Amino acid sequence: MSGDYRLGKSRLEAFSDGVIAIIITIMVLELKVPHGDELQALYPLLPVLLSYVLSFVYIGIYWNNHHHMLHAVRHVNGRVLWANLHLLFWLSLIPFVTGWMGENHFAPRPVALYGLVLMMAGIAYFILAHALIRLHGRDSALALALGRDVKGKASVAIYAVAVALSFVAHWLALGLYVLVAIMWLLPDPRIEKTLDE
Amino acid sequence: MSGDYRLGKSRLEAFSDGVIAIIITIMVLELKVPHGDELQALYPLLPVLLSYVLSFVYIGIYWNNHHHMLHAVRHVNGRVLWANLHLLFWLSLIPFVTGWMGENHFAPRPVALYGLVLMMAGIAYFILAHALIRLHGRDSALALALGRDVKGKASVAIYAVAVALSFVAHWLALGLYVLVAIMWLLPDPRIEKTLDE
Amino acid sequence: MSGDYRLGKSRLEAFSDGVIAIIITIMVLELKVPHGDELQALYPLLPVLLSYVLSFVYIGIYWNNHHHMLHAVRHVNGRVLWANLHLLFWLSLIPFVTGWMGENHFAPRPVALYGLVLMMAGIAYFILAHALIRLHGRDSALALALGRDVKGKASVAIYAVAVALSFVAHWLALGLYVLVAIMWLLPDPRIEKTLDE
Amino acid sequence: MSGDYRLGKSRLEAFSDGVIAIIITIMVLELKVPHGDELQALYPLLPVLLSYVLSFVYIGIYWNNHHHMLHAVRHVNGRVLWANLHLLFWLSLIPFVTGWMGENHFAPRPVALYGLVLMMAGIAYFILAHALIRLHGRDSALALALGRDVKGKASVAIYAVAVALSFVAHWLALGLYVLVAIMWLLPDPRIEKTLDE
Repeated sequence: MSGDYRLGKSRLEAFSDGVIAIIITIMVLELKVPHGDELQALYPLLPVLLSYVLSFVYIGIYWNNHHHMLHAVRHVNGRVLWANLHLLFWLSLIPFVTGWMGENHFAPRPVALYGLVLMMAGIAYFILAHALIRLHGRDSALALALGRDVKGKASVAIYAVAVALSFVAHWLALGLYVLVAIMWLLPDPRIEKTLDE
Repeated sequence: MSGDYRLGKSRLEAFSDGVIAIIITIMVLELKVPHGDELQALYPLLPVLLSYVLSFVYIGIYWNNHHHMLHAVRHVNGRVLWANLHLLFWLSLIPFVTGWMGENHFAPRPVALYGLVLMMAGIAYFILAHALIRLHGRDSALALALGRDVKGKASVAIYAVAVALSFVAHWLALGLYVLVAIMWLLPDPRIEKTLDE
Repeated sequence: MSGDYRLGKSRLEAFSDGVIAIIITIMVLELKVPHGDELQALYPLLPVLLSYVLSFVYIGIYWNNHHHMLHAVRHVNGRVLWANLHLLFWLSLIPFVTGWMGENHFAPRPVALYGLVLMMAGIAYFILAHALIRLHGRDSALALALGRDVKGKASVAIYAVAVALSFVAHWLALGLYVLVAIMWLLPDPRIEKTLDE
Repeated sequence: MSGDYRLGKSRLEAFSDGVIAIIITIMVLELKVPHGDELQALYPLLPVLLSYVLSFVYIGIYWNNHHHMLHAVRHVNGRVLWANLHLLFWLSLIPFVTGWMGENHFAPRPVALYGLVLMMAGIAYFILAHALIRLHGRDSALALALGRDVKGKASVAIYAVAVALSFVAHWLALGLYVLVAIMWLLPDPRIEKTLDE
């Protein structure tokens, strides 16, 4: 429409897959091989491992949802490419905030920063979804599938609450991150349903 | 069938290839470049190199079998995506346990932990196979090819034995890991045979 | 033509995507997880983060433009493969110069070296574009789209000026890098326009 | 034929591209960001950079030749998958030997080990080529293109000579590595020619 330059989505998918695959894997480099072969040598790694598991699930959720969303898409343009890179930027900071949170045993400030990056990634995903809807039209399968996007907006709101909570009750904030992860764990039924019909 | 949302398998393959390619390659980062140019400087790296070779073969086996299994598959769903991520999670811990085992010259506890991660990866592969069979039906090419999956179940059992053995005879445990690797080295003849007919 | 061996472009795209995805992601490894959980522990990382953002945008621009250029291309040959590897070589040095610039708080010499690598990448992109035009002909869509390539040549010239400026006014040099980035942020309208017609 | 299980070659290419892209990029991590912003701080990195350039070209050659060889191939089997993994194993050791050689300023033993890994990679490439010929037949396009494979055999022989030479004249050995690289720099004209006819 209106001179909009259209690109195939395959290279966008391939590049995103590459970046997300690297992000999910380099986090494991924070699990530094300990000196000594006693099991006690592993104890300090436990919080690092736990924060790795949480972030692995989050990156998995983003890959999953990205997969589903792009599946419902026919083409992309320059705006979408940059909205996608913007999302990848915030995801690329997750290994760093995961490491900081794990090494400091879920202390308040690292937990807050972790939530801040999650919130920014959530906003970036929202922007990407809307760049795609703008390209495909308000009556496209994707737009109908996303609907009013209650889940996406709720996640960002919960992250914001959790960041503020971190300074007074950081375990509660962490619980909220786990809650949002569980909420997203299943692939989005809205998109599945609409596309299935 | 029955409202099951179907996705192409190509992006699942691409993402898995990416993660497995990174896992197999970052293990080599544990081979830290030594100071000094004498050959003796390399001696402490020998056990690290040996454990790298074993893990390289194991990751290669998983990639190979994953390749064959997905080849026999027509589509995937949300459950399969998560079963696949679950497998990738355990595979992503292999560089860590490889490094710990290598740097401690195959001491009992690192050998046990190595086997534990192998066992969990074996179970995760089993879960993935069954998620795929559930989607394609009990009379699908894949289901017939896997049959009673004796080899998969035997591997998990041998890993469990080896983990227990590690504390009394860790070289024997290590021998069992090598044995299972040899057992899997060839691509699964069951799948090859069924698909060939 | 004339005995020129033609290859599909898909593997070139896949390999480039892989390398660029890794480059954009390993830069984040320079953001070393700090000891201590106070926010002050993050302050020394601020210049590293800023230089990461700049380089993330630059790598994103290269990926974007590479995507657009290859989109306008039908096939590749040996010369193109090597021109592409040459470009990837200079891009692969960006994490190093980014780290050096960030850790030295944008000191003159690191800023100059950063610009030198950007300049070499710009020249390598120019060489790649011309290898592609040579293969597709002066009247190809790509050649018409690139036209006189004012933007490409201007970028290289500005980098050269910025490198020289680094030693007398390094903040100005940095400003020029930001300026060129903004200039390129949008996908190339020349290619979009020509292909759209 | 004859009960040979055939797989598409696309996932083999994708996985190899992934591993080779990671290998070529993680070498740059050996270029550790120096402390201090003087140009002198970069001097100790010069031999590391030079050995990086040599290995970058070598990995580029392998990717290029792999690209051309697989282009002439129609399908793969289990033997080919493992011959390919075997090649990737030796290539994966190149970052390590590159780092050792660079940090020890091209001392005799690191230069010898570098050549040994190149030789093993050359042999692995030879094995892969023959596994592919065995699958496609002695009168296939690939077999005719490879012919008597003089260049491949000569390279392995030169590496062997260079390894022995390392202990008496390591600069000469290094010169031989550069010579072989130049010899391979162009994509294989044999394959290009045969396929073009």
